[in-house]
Amino acid sequence: MMPQGPKTVTAAVIIIGDEILSGRTKDKNLSFLAEALNDVGVQLRECRVVADVEGEIAAAVNALRGGYDYVFTTGGIGPTHDDITADSIGAAFGLAVDYHPGAMDILKAHYAHTGGELNRARMRMARTPIGAVLVENPVSKAPGFRVENVYVLAGIPVVCQAMFHSLKHELVGGDPVRSIAIAVHLAEGTLAKSLTGLQEKYPEVSLGSYPFHRDGRFGASIVARSQLPDKLAAAADDIRQLMRELGGNPMEEDG
Amino acid sequence: MMPQGPKTVTAAVIIIGDEILSGRTKDKNLSFLAEALNDVGVQLRECRVVADVEGEIAAAVNALRGGYDYVFTTGGIGPTHDDITADSIGAAFGLAVDYHPGAMDILKAHYAHTGGELNRARMRMARTPIGAVLVENPVSKAPGFRVENVYVLAGIPVVCQAMFHSLKHELVGGDPVRSIAIAVHLAEGTLAKSLTGLQEKYPEVSLGSYPFHRDGRFGASIVARSQLPDKLAAAADDIRQLMRELGGNPMEEDG
Repeated sequence: MMPQGPKTVTAAVIIIGDEILSGRTKDKNLSFLAEALNDVGVQLRECRVVADVEGEIAAAVNALRGGYDYVFTTGGIGPTHDDITADSIGAAFGLAVDYHPGAMDILKAHYAHTGGELNRARMRMARTPIGAVLVENPVSKAPGFRVENVYVLAGIPVVCQAMFHSLKHELVGGDPVRSIAIAVHLAEGTLAKSLTGLQEKYPEVSLGSYPFHRDGRFGASIVARSQLPDKLAAAADDIRQLMRELGGNPMEEDG
Repeated sequence: MMPQGPKTVTAAVIIIGDEILSGRTKDKNLSFLAEALNDVGVQLRECRVVADVEGEIAAAVNALRGGYDYVFTTGGIGPTHDDITADSIGAAFGLAVDYHPGAMDILKAHYAHTGGELNRARMRMARTPIGAVLVENPVSKAPGFRVENVYVLAGIPVVCQAMFHSLKHELVGGDPVRSIAIAVHLAEGTLAKSLTGLQEKYPEVSLGSYPFHRDGRFGASIVARSQLPDKLAAAADDIRQLMRELGGNPMEEDG
């Protein structure tokens, strides 16, 4: 048998929202999804932040859904006029959008329970492209949905996170990327030449260097990432050795 | 004379860095640039987060630089092997990359002053596409640069911010977007129908609705944004009036 490389599964994220682009709201979903996806063996490779404009959302979906195993969108699935994600996903796939019977049942039960009115605006939260599969929302009930490999999640971080936990069992991951991070009080420019050599020695390990300034001292965190645990461990040993040779004291950090 | 609409100047941001996509580092530059650009009359319209891969960086630059007045990149301009932004910008524009004489002078002076060694790795920070214009870095000296309408900034937030303040006088802005935010303890679904009507009444004002849950109560912030101060004020008055009619107490927030 031929030796096989690690299995790689990839994803992209599309963050929908004028409020992110205006700076009014700081996005919290990207870093959550990056880590949560990696935990299930899916590597986040690209992210786009787009305005609340149907054509731009649809274009981003169509630019990304063929190139990655999964696409996740966040935002724009509430009851107000600026919540246009369902229509935009419909436009991207050429699907009509209508009230999803299962989503209607969820909303009816929810508002019957809370005593709220299931008015026309709230019914908007049950609209999906025809054939979409629902994603459960244990927080505020109005569901997300999936069309093919595109998952449509809420923008409110707590709801986005809950929806992700509802769907993550559906994801078929690959070999996870593991990482080791080692910090040292040496300047990046001192480490750089030797790091280049290490990167060449370990092509299956991705080495990143991130300078920092804390407690009044400059330093750098070297982060090694790989799907191959043996290569990762060997590269990390070499990094620690290199730091000691340059007069530094390697400090383990959270990867 | 024909009446003229507001002057609109737009920008896109490209955040370069595996560390953002892995979730290890939380980006802080997008929200800074969004607000700082708006302060000088430039509207951020799109953002992409891309990996440390030359082809992907160059593709993002070329996808965006024709569609927006300005493009800003952050990250990847340090001394280590994973700092490939200069080469990627060169690739995007079809320009060779070489040591920039002005940048070399800055680095020579800096390392002569600090007693550090201007080694080959650090000289890497002086490489730019040929013809690039430098952007001053008052924090750590190694400069950013500009090629045509693409500004290349550092990824470390304090340096990115300092570089932006160095260059912002070069930007030719349009009429700024002003915003008014009004919060109310009413459910989005209660406000939604009337908001749709207001959006139709004020096409030059963009109305966004952002639900929240705080102090144990649900509510929504309605954000009105426009380049036309008169229309913005009129829309905001109507929003407050609507909230009162629905039994709510409008609360002014930071726009």
